[in-house]
Amino acid sequence: MPISKSIKNALGSSSMIRKMFEEGAQLKKQYGADRVFDFSIGNPDIEPPPAFHRVLVRLAGEDKKGSHGYMPNPGYPEVREILAKKASREHAVAIDGSHIIMSVGAAGGLNVVFKSILNPGDEVIVPKPFFMEYRAYVSNYGGTLVPVESRPDFGLDLTAIAAALNEKTAAVLINSPHNPSGRVYSREAIAELAELLTKHGGKTGRKPYLVADEPYREIVYNGIEVPPILSAYGESLVVTSYSKSLSLPGERIGYVAVSPTIEDKADVLGALIYATRVLGYVNAPALMQRIVAELTEETVDVDIYARRRDAFTQVLDESGIGYAQPEGAFYLFCKVPARKDGSAGDDAAFSDHLKKHLILGVPGRGFGQEGWVRFAYCVDESIIRSSGTAFKKAMEEW
Amino acid sequence: MPISKSIKNALGSSSMIRKMFEEGAQLKKQYGADRVFDFSIGNPDIEPPPAFHRVLVRLAGEDKKGSHGYMPNPGYPEVREILAKKASREHAVAIDGSHIIMSVGAAGGLNVVFKSILNPGDEVIVPKPFFMEYRAYVSNYGGTLVPVESRPDFGLDLTAIAAALNEKTAAVLINSPHNPSGRVYSREAIAELAELLTKHGGKTGRKPYLVADEPYREIVYNGIEVPPILSAYGESLVVTSYSKSLSLPGERIGYVAVSPTIEDKADVLGALIYATRVLGYVNAPALMQRIVAELTEETVDVDIYARRRDAFTQVLDESGIGYAQPEGAFYLFCKVPARKDGSAGDDAAFSDHLKKHLILGVPGRGFGQEGWVRFAYCVDESIIRSSGTAFKKAMEEW
Repeated sequence: MPISKSIKNALGSSSMIRKMFEEGAQLKKQYGADRVFDFSIGNPDIEPPPAFHRVLVRLAGEDKKGSHGYMPNPGYPEVREILAKKASREHAVAIDGSHIIMSVGAAGGLNVVFKSILNPGDEVIVPKPFFMEYRAYVSNYGGTLVPVESRPDFGLDLTAIAAALNEKTAAVLINSPHNPSGRVYSREAIAELAELLTKHGGKTGRKPYLVADEPYREIVYNGIEVPPILSAYGESLVVTSYSKSLSLPGERIGYVAVSPTIEDKADVLGALIYATRVLGYVNAPALMQRIVAELTEETVDVDIYARRRDAFTQVLDESGIGYAQPEGAFYLFCKVPARKDGSAGDDAAFSDHLKKHLILGVPGRGFGQEGWVRFAYCVDESIIRSSGTAFKKAMEEW
Repeated sequence: MPISKSIKNALGSSSMIRKMFEEGAQLKKQYGADRVFDFSIGNPDIEPPPAFHRVLVRLAGEDKKGSHGYMPNPGYPEVREILAKKASREHAVAIDGSHIIMSVGAAGGLNVVFKSILNPGDEVIVPKPFFMEYRAYVSNYGGTLVPVESRPDFGLDLTAIAAALNEKTAAVLINSPHNPSGRVYSREAIAELAELLTKHGGKTGRKPYLVADEPYREIVYNGIEVPPILSAYGESLVVTSYSKSLSLPGERIGYVAVSPTIEDKADVLGALIYATRVLGYVNAPALMQRIVAELTEETVDVDIYARRRDAFTQVLDESGIGYAQPEGAFYLFCKVPARKDGSAGDDAAFSDHLKKHLILGVPGRGFGQEGWVRFAYCVDESIIRSSGTAFKKAMEEW
């Protein structure tokens, strides 16, 4: 029996990150895990904060009746109230718990959002580079992802977004702090985007949603501001998770927060709840809901990521590799350096070259941006520092 | 901005179970929760077994590095190996962990399966009555659910299934032990179904998948056998969860088990893993995966459900209400009794009538089967016993 044709096609062109993962496993087998500099996977290696373990142990021991049973599809009402207060602070609005839909991580939340808002033929604009899974999250519901250029510093390019807007545009999807560039969009950029979308809505009668994927909101450096979204634009939905801020990616816990002034609010909230149900999530995992509600003031130790960032940029500086200075998240997006002999060398070739020196990164084309390579610093600082020699050697031979 | 049109339509015709839930809450507010006999919701009220709490407390305390991080999309390899052994025993096959895909409950597992196997225009046959969410799980991926009649005792009607089979049939979906009737399909019935599907495949070149939704496998009475599926038919996939057997519906943990002889096995397994990823589940919750792997021999105390079933059938017998004798699960599916005055009275009217006597059940039309009402016995035995007077009074006035 044949499987789904679209999946059969997708399996043929398997993910670049997955390919790196498999090649990395092979290299580690061959040379020993401690000799391979694996910067390919954004899997947070910093442990959850001690408070997470304290709350987990306490709730595990409490053993209250019904605490692992069903609750309403959008989550425990008391959890949603607590997270609404947090979202209200972060987004300069006043929302109550009815605006929060607990989700199975941000990936689950994005699927719920796109199932809720997309009609077949709709388009979703996303600035390049972008997390490649977005393509599936949109096409799952009959939509098409429309990648547009960003500015050279990976800030929002309003002109490029304006050129892509049309009557089929259902949403603009942004991700800040940004994977893979580490860019944080400024308050001004968000205001300009909001103005652009509002004007477009006025002209066409269809005001696009702004969907903000924000799992890295709390992982920022040098006190940079991640500006509010929900207060900046009425038709906005914020999707987030605790995968990065609490290092809980395996537990699949996050939420969608909805703007208090969104049009047809009852429909939007009803659709998000319905999508949570019929996509088979049913509800976000019960125990984790109760845990994250107690940890609104907690994050992993972001200083560890900051020190790694500094160590990594030093390694790159000393090797003569240019990069976008990350303001948040835990990636370094590096420009493929010119070859000594002046011959062509793209991101795939540079990644292959680095691999010979046992350095693993992901070619930018895996994010829709050729000519760049992404390194994730979800590895110990000592590994980053000791990669310096390998980077230098790789550059000498490039 | 408009939401998805298909969801807008769905929100208009909201779920019957949900409607009952809201009316029930209203009645409880009006009369007091202890005076309302709420048999409307299949939310397991029996607590998880003590072993669950022991394992939860132990794993919570262990605090191992990376234990809440990502693992491969289909789940922890060691967990999948353990569950493969269990599935091998239950289904009389020898499968290894590669045949197990951990899922976000059975609802998540069914979505992953249908995303993997359906092409637009495909049909999925399901015997009536059936859990109404199946309709969405199939239409989510462009398929159409095709309900067919069952035998009067709610056993499989092979003639009805044969009549519905055609070249568009991608799968037959069965649920045994069965919600809402409590029927368990016999080994002979499964063998006949397998033979029918094999013959159909030989004739048309398209052998339909058999998808078995089995969350109630371990909740059966009088030692009745739930026959193996994976060994009965080569093209089979079993979907299950711990929502009922361990009373963990809020934690969203289950799995898909794939027949070892399924055609294009690498494609099927690849598709299930891909669907798990792109539908945004990413993986089943990490901690719960590790917990259920230690509880393969545990279930809730099924004797409690058995005693409730006996108490409930006694109440119905004494009230003169006919029903299908449940062999498993925790539902009583009751025939709407003839009215004393001979006037017409359907399942909606009978449910409304019962509601006046503060008894809540779900009309059979909520499962595609008019003329019946479903009662869930997820309530204390004492409540079931004390509902007898209300049932009798309701029958006197019917």
